[in-house]
Amino acid sequence: MVRAPIVLDSDPGLDDAVALQYLLGTGLWDLKAYLAVGGNVPAEQAFRNARGLARAFGIAADVPVHRGAGRPISRVEFSADFHGPTGLGTEVLPDSTAPEQTECAAAALVRLSKEYEGELTVVAIGPLTNVAAALLLDPQVAYRVRHLVFMGGAARVPGNTNPVAEFNVWADPDAADIVVSSGIPYTMVGLDATNRWRFHRDDLSRLDAAGPGQRLTARLMRAYLKSYEDHTGQDTAALHDPLAVGVASDESFVTAETGTVIVETASHLTRGQTVFIPGESDRSYDYPPAISARTKHTGRVALGAGPRDFSAHFIETVLLRPSA
Amino acid sequence: MVRAPIVLDSDPGLDDAVALQYLLGTGLWDLKAYLAVGGNVPAEQAFRNARGLARAFGIAADVPVHRGAGRPISRVEFSADFHGPTGLGTEVLPDSTAPEQTECAAAALVRLSKEYEGELTVVAIGPLTNVAAALLLDPQVAYRVRHLVFMGGAARVPGNTNPVAEFNVWADPDAADIVVSSGIPYTMVGLDATNRWRFHRDDLSRLDAAGPGQRLTARLMRAYLKSYEDHTGQDTAALHDPLAVGVASDESFVTAETGTVIVETASHLTRGQTVFIPGESDRSYDYPPAISARTKHTGRVALGAGPRDFSAHFIETVLLRPSA
Amino acid sequence: MVRAPIVLDSDPGLDDAVALQYLLGTGLWDLKAYLAVGGNVPAEQAFRNARGLARAFGIAADVPVHRGAGRPISRVEFSADFHGPTGLGTEVLPDSTAPEQTECAAAALVRLSKEYEGELTVVAIGPLTNVAAALLLDPQVAYRVRHLVFMGGAARVPGNTNPVAEFNVWADPDAADIVVSSGIPYTMVGLDATNRWRFHRDDLSRLDAAGPGQRLTARLMRAYLKSYEDHTGQDTAALHDPLAVGVASDESFVTAETGTVIVETASHLTRGQTVFIPGESDRSYDYPPAISARTKHTGRVALGAGPRDFSAHFIETVLLRPSA
Amino acid sequence: MVRAPIVLDSDPGLDDAVALQYLLGTGLWDLKAYLAVGGNVPAEQAFRNARGLARAFGIAADVPVHRGAGRPISRVEFSADFHGPTGLGTEVLPDSTAPEQTECAAAALVRLSKEYEGELTVVAIGPLTNVAAALLLDPQVAYRVRHLVFMGGAARVPGNTNPVAEFNVWADPDAADIVVSSGIPYTMVGLDATNRWRFHRDDLSRLDAAGPGQRLTARLMRAYLKSYEDHTGQDTAALHDPLAVGVASDESFVTAETGTVIVETASHLTRGQTVFIPGESDRSYDYPPAISARTKHTGRVALGAGPRDFSAHFIETVLLRPSA
Repeated sequence: MVRAPIVLDSDPGLDDAVALQYLLGTGLWDLKAYLAVGGNVPAEQAFRNARGLARAFGIAADVPVHRGAGRPISRVEFSADFHGPTGLGTEVLPDSTAPEQTECAAAALVRLSKEYEGELTVVAIGPLTNVAAALLLDPQVAYRVRHLVFMGGAARVPGNTNPVAEFNVWADPDAADIVVSSGIPYTMVGLDATNRWRFHRDDLSRLDAAGPGQRLTARLMRAYLKSYEDHTGQDTAALHDPLAVGVASDESFVTAETGTVIVETASHLTRGQTVFIPGESDRSYDYPPAISARTKHTGRVALGAGPRDFSAHFIETVLLRPSA
Repeated sequence: MVRAPIVLDSDPGLDDAVALQYLLGTGLWDLKAYLAVGGNVPAEQAFRNARGLARAFGIAADVPVHRGAGRPISRVEFSADFHGPTGLGTEVLPDSTAPEQTECAAAALVRLSKEYEGELTVVAIGPLTNVAAALLLDPQVAYRVRHLVFMGGAARVPGNTNPVAEFNVWADPDAADIVVSSGIPYTMVGLDATNRWRFHRDDLSRLDAAGPGQRLTARLMRAYLKSYEDHTGQDTAALHDPLAVGVASDESFVTAETGTVIVETASHLTRGQTVFIPGESDRSYDYPPAISARTKHTGRVALGAGPRDFSAHFIETVLLRPSA
Repeated sequence: MVRAPIVLDSDPGLDDAVALQYLLGTGLWDLKAYLAVGGNVPAEQAFRNARGLARAFGIAADVPVHRGAGRPISRVEFSADFHGPTGLGTEVLPDSTAPEQTECAAAALVRLSKEYEGELTVVAIGPLTNVAAALLLDPQVAYRVRHLVFMGGAARVPGNTNPVAEFNVWADPDAADIVVSSGIPYTMVGLDATNRWRFHRDDLSRLDAAGPGQRLTARLMRAYLKSYEDHTGQDTAALHDPLAVGVASDESFVTAETGTVIVETASHLTRGQTVFIPGESDRSYDYPPAISARTKHTGRVALGAGPRDFSAHFIETVLLRPSA
Repeated sequence: MVRAPIVLDSDPGLDDAVALQYLLGTGLWDLKAYLAVGGNVPAEQAFRNARGLARAFGIAADVPVHRGAGRPISRVEFSADFHGPTGLGTEVLPDSTAPEQTECAAAALVRLSKEYEGELTVVAIGPLTNVAAALLLDPQVAYRVRHLVFMGGAARVPGNTNPVAEFNVWADPDAADIVVSSGIPYTMVGLDATNRWRFHRDDLSRLDAAGPGQRLTARLMRAYLKSYEDHTGQDTAALHDPLAVGVASDESFVTAETGTVIVETASHLTRGQTVFIPGESDRSYDYPPAISARTKHTGRVALGAGPRDFSAHFIETVLLRPSA
């Protein structure tokens, strides 16, 4: 079977780490580049973590890791502590022995969109800064990429960073809005769906039982469960980032509708909200022309859990792909 | 039994009309003033309709009708056609024979808040322009009113005017934001609850069967059902405005939580959204200080249908109070 | 000579006080009401000061003083200390012996616009909250008032409260924008002109030499000069508020052009800016329709000092009208 | 004499063309790259024009021309016709014979900021999209560039695109704001200064008299004068872009002050305004913390014509550097 070319753009991040592992475990994808982006951790730490994960999962020699944008497009400072002091809990991974790429993530994405025109899948599981930067450098990227799946947003459920916004979109709403208005074929996998597929303590036991190749994964997921408990009081953890990877190959992990997403970039109150207008909408509401015109761009928007069990698929797939 | 003093502020409007009838039917309230406000119809038409309804329901001699603000505080022009050419479908009611009040609605509200300090209930079922204007003229109104119940907003459900905003709040978001940040004790009865209690074709049959005293009501509700069908394809109609009157006497028609409401006034995209922050919130999110400070003002927010059946109560109550 | 009916709306304020004195001194005006508004001092203090000034200048029996809006329309809290602890420096004036008006300022303005339809001049020298509130209550006020002159704004010069905004407009930009877009015939007398006509230490000597009837005025103007020196390092003081009264009878105290004023209400950075579009403009720039449509409303905008010497006229006029 | 390394970022554009010629004529600079950016013309046309100009001025073999960002960061569509159908009037220049650079402008700027760390001057005479994109990719660019001079903005004079905004900043205000808040040492050369140094019909005669090497220049400047006449009624033309190049070597062409520039990005009304706060400001006004914090970043801001005659220097310098 021919594996399809894919780029993973990530701000590792505990669930980012296992999203990579899951991606590799599926056997479906030919990972052409692993892009780092600031979000759960600052940009440079994201790059360090990404290199460390590339080594840990044995792909350092084959998959280039590219440094992402040094800051979000949106002019806001933030810090996030959910993912622990290093972003991988307290984990400090040995650096990859591969030489550092000099090409930045956005330029790499532009290049790969040409090399794999019409074939390339992009899965973005951090803020959309790199994807937006690529679209700024070359708007035609939107028409060369086959499919962008991003983890982010909240269509019909409350946010997790402010009352209406999900973290990845909130962290760089201008970037997100550039992406969803670019014409790129996209699927938004936001909290409506990601909060529905959980990782449980039982899954942790399976990792613990699986031997040394899952020890890193078990440590990461134990830290992730603990963060969930500390921050939300919940005893299970949402599989946000892995689900976006899963949807890239099979939408049936979620229910989804076609509609328009417009990101709130101006208001402090609703910053980062992903306003969802269902349908191939011909409703213009009472919007000014510039907003009404946006409804011509539609994407797929995940609105809930789908019929296929992602939680089960995730743990099975991860168990297939131990770390080094 | 002593009936409690109440003011009804309304932009009639088909369901506004029956909200008045329902209020009178409950026998619980001593209606001190009937205020008109622009919304479903322009301000002057609202005043004309309110005078006509006062006559039709036989209260013209006892209840002063006050002309409301001539325009919303928010600088936006809009038109609404849901309620038909006159706002009461095609109904043109004979004018009240009472002399016109020279005191405007906002001034009347300020005065009544003094006369019935600590006792006055206000039910506002149109845009909140008059209530906000009263609070501008005299911010102490907030501390004299016992309870404000307003029909408006959408906390956790989509809007009905843009994807995130309900009509009454959307029509004058600045007014709504002045109200919910004023310190007035309020209950927001928005689409989360009002869409759940419906008027059915069966109810229409009961009105038809009830004789001449319900003929006006039957005509109004027939027009209302038709508008619902034409605009939304639904064959039942939401009892938006009557429900707010109902909640003024019994919260159990809805489920409600305490929380903060902040109205989006700046953004074109999310204009009129009622952002809901549940709880006596100590979460400041990453909001700037001016927004975080707002969480000190909380109200009750209806989030769904409650245990007591409002649809049944509504029709029974209306049947008790025929028009003249 | 028949004196023309006028209303003075003011937030006294040191220069507000002498603006009243100057108005009385001209002998041109029949002062129908003296309205208080929050600005330089909170609303209630403004009302107290206005009553005290009415008594001090001997008009308490003839001119009703009306309490203004209790807060600005714009939801921002501010304090201003330029005018000293009481707003009249340290001056605490004896209260007027006239009974308190129960009619609020906005309602009084609506009423007077009817009583003197087509004749009434309004001079507003504080934030435009009362005028805007009157326009909310009754938009037809705009077509009944003969001429509104307001002190406020900065068309082509920097602001005095933020880099681009003058205090009166900044303190309630929503009110100002309601006014300039209402259709009311207006002249904006802002910093472009008011900073050009100054009160000098020599003028103070003339007041000092004029005997007991100018002692209050001398104390007020001494405090005003001191505030200028303390806050700006300048040894003369701008005759902001008196100039607006002057322009109401003679535009030649300023140079003025016809144009559109639009007030920035949404941005924190440029809040209260009075964007000036010169001419009976047919330029739509690249504005969205809602802004372009605004250019149909034009007013006169003072852009500099005019040929007639206001500083000289001011001191001469004030000397004609001693306090009690 | 050692010529200093410089990058010119330009959206040619009639005055952009002669700005390049002027830069070459000074003999002061070692032009390391010529970057194209969309503005006066769309991005791709800017790249075509830049390549044509590189050939016309004989630098195609030595100076790489880089394609700029394909769109502004700000999500607004605009068109500009001031510079004629090709952006160089009606001029269609033969393409450069140099191979196309694959490295985009932003990446080239990042690279050159490392190669010439502490030495590199950047002159940007179009929208600041490329410079902002470079700062997104690598925020350290701000600390490696010796000096950025950009043509854009209006500190104390009206705008030329809306009442308060200059074209280059208006065309991508988000980019401009990223730049001026990045920490890069900058000089803003805006309309306050550029409107003061003019190109006259006499200068055209000198070009005409100078023989074939100035024929292209004469055609460009004739078109430029005509556009000024057609669009503004003025019979001289502002030397906007060349002045920025001039200031890069000698600030005495302008008067300038140190201060903070903050760009309005949120408001439709004041979009692209460059709010100027003079001084090493310790004034925080009443700004929210996020805006007050901005005053720590200061730059030099041209506020008028300086003592050295730029108009004379420009024509003399251009005459030294005929085209091929």
